Amino acid sequence: MANAEILSIGTELLLGEVLDTNSKFFATELAKLGIDCYYRVTVGDNKDRIKASLKQAFDRSDIVLTSGGLGPTADDLTTECIAEFFSLPMILDEAVLREIEKLFADRNLSMPETNKKQAMRPQGSGVLPNPSGTAPGIMWIVPAEVLAKAGVSDPQRKRAVLTFPGVPSELVNMWNQSGAEFISKNFLTGAIFSIELKHYGIGESALAEKYADLLDGTSPTVAPYAGMGECRLRVAAKANTIEEARALVMPVAELIRKESGKLCYGQDDDTLEAVVGQMLISNNLTLSVAESCTGGLVSKRLTDIGGSSQYIKLNAVTYANEAKMKILGVPQELLEQYGAVSDECARAMAEGIVRLSGADIGLSITGIAGPTGGTPDKPVGTVYLGLCANGQVDTKKLSLGTKLNRQEIRFRTSSAALNMVRLHLLSRNLVTQ
Amino acid sequence: MANAEILSIGTELLLGEVLDTNSKFFATELAKLGIDCYYRVTVGDNKDRIKASLKQAFDRSDIVLTSGGLGPTADDLTTECIAEFFSLPMILDEAVLREIEKLFADRNLSMPETNKKQAMRPQGSGVLPNPSGTAPGIMWIVPAEVLAKAGVSDPQRKRAVLTFPGVPSELVNMWNQSGAEFISKNFLTGAIFSIELKHYGIGESALAEKYADLLDGTSPTVAPYAGMGECRLRVAAKANTIEEARALVMPVAELIRKESGKLCYGQDDDTLEAVVGQMLISNNLTLSVAESCTGGLVSKRLTDIGGSSQYIKLNAVTYANEAKMKILGVPQELLEQYGAVSDECARAMAEGIVRLSGADIGLSITGIAGPTGGTPDKPVGTVYLGLCANGQVDTKKLSLGTKLNRQEIRFRTSSAALNMVRLHLLSRNLVTQ
Repeated sequence: MANAEILSIGTELLLGEVLDTNSKFFATELAKLGIDCYYRVTVGDNKDRIKASLKQAFDRSDIVLTSGGLGPTADDLTTECIAEFFSLPMILDEAVLREIEKLFADRNLSMPETNKKQAMRPQGSGVLPNPSGTAPGIMWIVPAEVLAKAGVSDPQRKRAVLTFPGVPSELVNMWNQSGAEFISKNFLTGAIFSIELKHYGIGESALAEKYADLLDGTSPTVAPYAGMGECRLRVAAKANTIEEARALVMPVAELIRKESGKLCYGQDDDTLEAVVGQMLISNNLTLSVAESCTGGLVSKRLTDIGGSSQYIKLNAVTYANEAKMKILGVPQELLEQYGAVSDECARAMAEGIVRLSGADIGLSITGIAGPTGGTPDKPVGTVYLGLCANGQVDTKKLSLGTKLNRQEIRFRTSSAALNMVRLHLLSRNLVTQ
Repeated sequence: MANAEILSIGTELLLGEVLDTNSKFFATELAKLGIDCYYRVTVGDNKDRIKASLKQAFDRSDIVLTSGGLGPTADDLTTECIAEFFSLPMILDEAVLREIEKLFADRNLSMPETNKKQAMRPQGSGVLPNPSGTAPGIMWIVPAEVLAKAGVSDPQRKRAVLTFPGVPSELVNMWNQSGAEFISKNFLTGAIFSIELKHYGIGESALAEKYADLLDGTSPTVAPYAGMGECRLRVAAKANTIEEARALVMPVAELIRKESGKLCYGQDDDTLEAVVGQMLISNNLTLSVAESCTGGLVSKRLTDIGGSSQYIKLNAVTYANEAKMKILGVPQELLEQYGAVSDECARAMAEGIVRLSGADIGLSITGIAGPTGGTPDKPVGTVYLGLCANGQVDTKKLSLGTKLNRQEIRFRTSSAALNMVRLHLLSRNLVTQ
């Protein structure tokens, strides 16, 4: 089984100026292909350290993926270091140069002389096209004699190097369009198929306990992952073809889906907001949200989804009591008697946003996100949710504890609110089916 | 000058399940202390590879910071690997054990036997307290004879190891309460003082050009960084004492602040939303926002700030034309004649939200975030902002281009909107002073 190493290049990473999302992307994608990754290394824009890291990577790994250092300036050293490491001259690729010139011409700019550098690469290496930027990469099965000359251990073993720019969107495009296929073709004998089943409303240990017998399996493997108040179960198998791998995964995935029922809200890239959006569209329903402590986060998440204007018409952030009264018609007496953070207020807000918007479903959120505002009765993390539909209102109390910070409380509250809408839509479907 | 190496430990990082924000945190903090970081390495939960990485790290670096692998389960290997690498027995720290037991008792739980492991550490090592979790770390100047026995090169040079759990909030607390001071005391001869001056409304290259002469300086150094539509200038100096370093930095920082004027909105951890919030408080003004394409993001950012209920009373997300008419009173004829993405609509929305909320300042955002909805006249990325105050409305058009994705367009729009409020508040102060 081939293994890969991820090498991030850039002093900005070592200064903490930039968060390295590229390495996470590569790691996720390699895992999907079933290629092991044992090391991720970050070095700065320094020739000696880049070359030392290349040596180490080629010695211990089959595939070396680099990000960063492909720009036109003097501190962009990746390509040059690879050429020097393999003692190869840099050549100018005329075809690549013409593409870069064209990119500038399209923007009515003349190409600065420095960008010529981006058309240079080590003699004999292949090009990894960059459809969305000026910096193409290298994509190359390094010949055994080149490896041997550089002193790489076991030079007869197949090695590849792929270089990507540090700009995340360009890197992702290049991987999706060329990189993944190149690696599959050259390094995978079998095929991997995997599904991640996303769960909400159950903790990692409870999920692991529920599926303890499956977690011991090897084909497919089943593993739980937790994060941000959610849990995922990854079901994966390897076989000779993707169809065979799929045939191993699907029955187990279906079993889990059935067992988990409402706890499983989707798979892979699904999000609560996207799933809620799809359900609203397929049921031809609209949703309006009245938020207090989440301050617009639920609205923001719902409208992160392109096309959400189909089911979101109006949301209100009623932070002040006055706004709750004036916009949502929450009675002053109710606020005085129970307070804004109460079951009663959540109920009145949900009713109010339906009245105001005419939406089919009204969702309300009121609580204490902290860091101040907590009381012994209602500590920070106390939240009430309300959902109004068909003239009925359901409410739910969350106690998120005092260990979470403001951002975490707000995020977990927004997920709980979205999930409340999802559960409502599910129960609605069950009734009408 | 001492240098540090960051070692992240955890298979979940190599599978891309988790984004490594800890390494970025360490990198930022080391840069603040003026300690060079040449390498960041990530390995999985594998003894051989962890020990090999420890060997390499101690060989080439003075300070080794690890994150992850301090939990109670079998795949938490960090402490054990350090003990094995240095051929030291693991000892049970009774005082630490009692603290862990107390943590469980406080929650009315009995401590599982496995958690005993978290009170173990290599004989002779020191404790890095963890005030917010069950896993303390090691904080230790490794004696020369221990280094020599492990075969570390140049064992007479001072080396330290500090281990942190992978939970970001615990790691940050432990660094702030103990780690940073330990490193300063043991490795810093001089002191570093730095300020980051945050700019909005000027690009990185324009900023670099404006301050070209300062960028060549060495004491203080001045360097530009770009990201998320903003730019930062970092001014830093090293001297014998923090006061001396400060005295080198401040005149240059003041000069830049004065030169940059309104382009500089704050320093260090300041955000546009926090700065706007402070200005609203000190002017005793309230703000209401009517959002269309940003869908609640501006409201979310404003209310990310604790205490924002002082100046945010009500925001509206009027996604549909109907909501713009009904809630904000945007005339139907206006929408028919100019469309919802227009200067006229932004103006009417800003007036409408002031009318509805009674806020001193009304901010409106309407545009096309994509990926669909663009036209030749109004391509994706076309946004109009409106600001209504004292009966007057200003508008601003943004053309964010078609290269950005939906999230990027929404984020940059939200920053431009917050900056519009900031500039308004600045001009207001100038008038009244």
